[in-house]
Amino acid sequence: MSAVVTFLSDYGTEDDFVGVCHGVIARLAPDARVVDVAHGVPRHNVRAGALALRNALPYMPAGVHLAVVDPEVGAERRAVAIRCADEGRLLVGPDNGLLALAAARFGGAVEAVDVGRSPWRLEPVSATFHGRDIFAPVAAHLAAGDELADAGEPCDPESLARLQLPRPVVGDGSLTAHVVAVDRFGNAILDATHSDLDGSGIRLGRPLELEVGRRRFTAWYAVTFADVRPGEILVYEDAYRTLAVAVNRGNAALMLGLADDAELRIAAA
Amino acid sequence: MSAVVTFLSDYGTEDDFVGVCHGVIARLAPDARVVDVAHGVPRHNVRAGALALRNALPYMPAGVHLAVVDPEVGAERRAVAIRCADEGRLLVGPDNGLLALAAARFGGAVEAVDVGRSPWRLEPVSATFHGRDIFAPVAAHLAAGDELADAGEPCDPESLARLQLPRPVVGDGSLTAHVVAVDRFGNAILDATHSDLDGSGIRLGRPLELEVGRRRFTAWYAVTFADVRPGEILVYEDAYRTLAVAVNRGNAALMLGLADDAELRIAAA
Amino acid sequence: MSAVVTFLSDYGTEDDFVGVCHGVIARLAPDARVVDVAHGVPRHNVRAGALALRNALPYMPAGVHLAVVDPEVGAERRAVAIRCADEGRLLVGPDNGLLALAAARFGGAVEAVDVGRSPWRLEPVSATFHGRDIFAPVAAHLAAGDELADAGEPCDPESLARLQLPRPVVGDGSLTAHVVAVDRFGNAILDATHSDLDGSGIRLGRPLELEVGRRRFTAWYAVTFADVRPGEILVYEDAYRTLAVAVNRGNAALMLGLADDAELRIAAA
Repeated sequence: MSAVVTFLSDYGTEDDFVGVCHGVIARLAPDARVVDVAHGVPRHNVRAGALALRNALPYMPAGVHLAVVDPEVGAERRAVAIRCADEGRLLVGPDNGLLALAAARFGGAVEAVDVGRSPWRLEPVSATFHGRDIFAPVAAHLAAGDELADAGEPCDPESLARLQLPRPVVGDGSLTAHVVAVDRFGNAILDATHSDLDGSGIRLGRPLELEVGRRRFTAWYAVTFADVRPGEILVYEDAYRTLAVAVNRGNAALMLGLADDAELRIAAA
Repeated sequence: MSAVVTFLSDYGTEDDFVGVCHGVIARLAPDARVVDVAHGVPRHNVRAGALALRNALPYMPAGVHLAVVDPEVGAERRAVAIRCADEGRLLVGPDNGLLALAAARFGGAVEAVDVGRSPWRLEPVSATFHGRDIFAPVAAHLAAGDELADAGEPCDPESLARLQLPRPVVGDGSLTAHVVAVDRFGNAILDATHSDLDGSGIRLGRPLELEVGRRRFTAWYAVTFADVRPGEILVYEDAYRTLAVAVNRGNAALMLGLADDAELRIAAA
Repeated sequence: MSAVVTFLSDYGTEDDFVGVCHGVIARLAPDARVVDVAHGVPRHNVRAGALALRNALPYMPAGVHLAVVDPEVGAERRAVAIRCADEGRLLVGPDNGLLALAAARFGGAVEAVDVGRSPWRLEPVSATFHGRDIFAPVAAHLAAGDELADAGEPCDPESLARLQLPRPVVGDGSLTAHVVAVDRFGNAILDATHSDLDGSGIRLGRPLELEVGRRRFTAWYAVTFADVRPGEILVYEDAYRTLAVAVNRGNAALMLGLADDAELRIAAA
């Protein structure tokens, strides 16, 4: 059984960025198996990448998890490789919060290395493509069995960048939540889960009132899209057990005017 | 030589749906080789997926063929795994007609199992992502060598959903055909083949008259796009030996007003 | 360690073209590892494909390098397989210039074979999908260890199609360059490198004057986007050590009116 490298980025699949990183890994770790998690993370959206990574990695084999969403490439952010407490999972990427949620999901970082000047990087390192020149080579060496400690300079796991997510506020008969991501269908992912609704009086299959700014909407707390009519709004638990807002055969972000960080009050109607 | 899992879906490649299914397979069947057939099937278009599967699978190694185009996920459609007569090919997906044309292409289903409550599914099964929770795990177990009979409850191959395709009508000197799919270049794939033109008087390299509703167009029966001038209409045999209508450097669907199921009369001019 | 097949095309990833070629390779060379370089080359843009191939292949393991950007499929262009002087790299694709820059990058072609009637092709060969019927099978046989000489009829490496690229003109205090490709962000790749600026008086971090037709723009010669303000124009060395023109958080092609082959005069301001 070969080592697994998973790979998430905002590189898109039109250009050769992803392919070149695969090539670098294939040269340095010919026996590694590379699994693409996703490369359509919205460009430079670190939080969307961090959420996708946290959600997807538990379904991936433990291995080396390469992630690149890197708006500050060429500026001062560190490049890091991290060992997590659980399953010895290794995360490699920019130290800008992208890895923070996944690291927490796997018990936190127990070892961290600054790989910005890794002996494994490809020279000359370009100003703009650290995925190819730093992150992919580091991931490949780790997949080939090289030691994390040899990847660069040790650094304090406590010093790693964190990612601030909004938090829902459970009130008397209502929940105030926030949009943390909008997917390409206009579904808005919230910072809340089903259990945040305990004691709010909100029940599955019942109507809700949604308040966004000064506007109010009627919605349903439903299991799946088919439970409401086309054009109707639903709040539902998505496949990662997070609450989300959608419109059956419509676009909730457009209809309700929702974007990242928008605040939303949910109450029983 | 490892087992092969092929994978077709309408998940697109922007989000992590495809990647997560790959991860699930890599965990359960670490030695399987996964070949992506296509993930750009038009969303929820079961017939387009069924046609792509029938056309592409003969070029794929025999193995486990996973397919997910599933507009009714969470509703009552069955989830199935099927063994075909030819080469022991196994098909896994929703029982909504998606697998019907491929199954027929490989000699028909000789064994079928309802996998909706498969012992191999990932718990808790989400309401919306059966690709991850049911279909990918079942495909992976089969690729790892587990027995089809252990995938769930046996069901009657005769009870599997069928897919109704329109049929061309060969008339006196003409052919009445129907659009079964439109690709992203606006080429319209018909329900007819070259041999349906036998006896219609239509000959390669000769002009045709196309009738769509009350509109008439001049076209050519040609081998390839370069045989007609830019802007001209051609009827040709596509790479899967199916008749199609295109416009050289243009968009036939727009120019002729063609959509799925449109009827088209083709006659020698 | 298995043989590697890399694969570049303009097929896009929506349809099943790429997947079917993967299937063909998996059938004929079950142990080969396929690395996708990119499939988003602009449709029928041979030069863009040739540049991407030249840039990306040095990062790929030596192996069989399949490439298909083939506007003249079905017409008279040859189909070829080429052995390069360096590392024994093998290139497979249409003989329309697509392979020329990569071949030169690897020391030139030392052996060439016309594979249009290769004994390995899949019959019946379609008029439009030679990737599936000719190029993928030839690449797969070579990856499986079959001899290049057996792929078809030998032909003279000197007869292979070349690709004419514009060349920059170094003048007194200025450089006249040309656009060879525009990426999806509107960045314009030039036919010049950093060393072409030697003696032009242009220095990193200093302002420049760009002349496009009769229009003049102020720009900066910078290392990375973050070195200029949003909306400002920069000339920079891209990740493949080629000069390029961009606008920080903007679209240079639109702002400056640049397209393939546009001429651009760069001088110190």
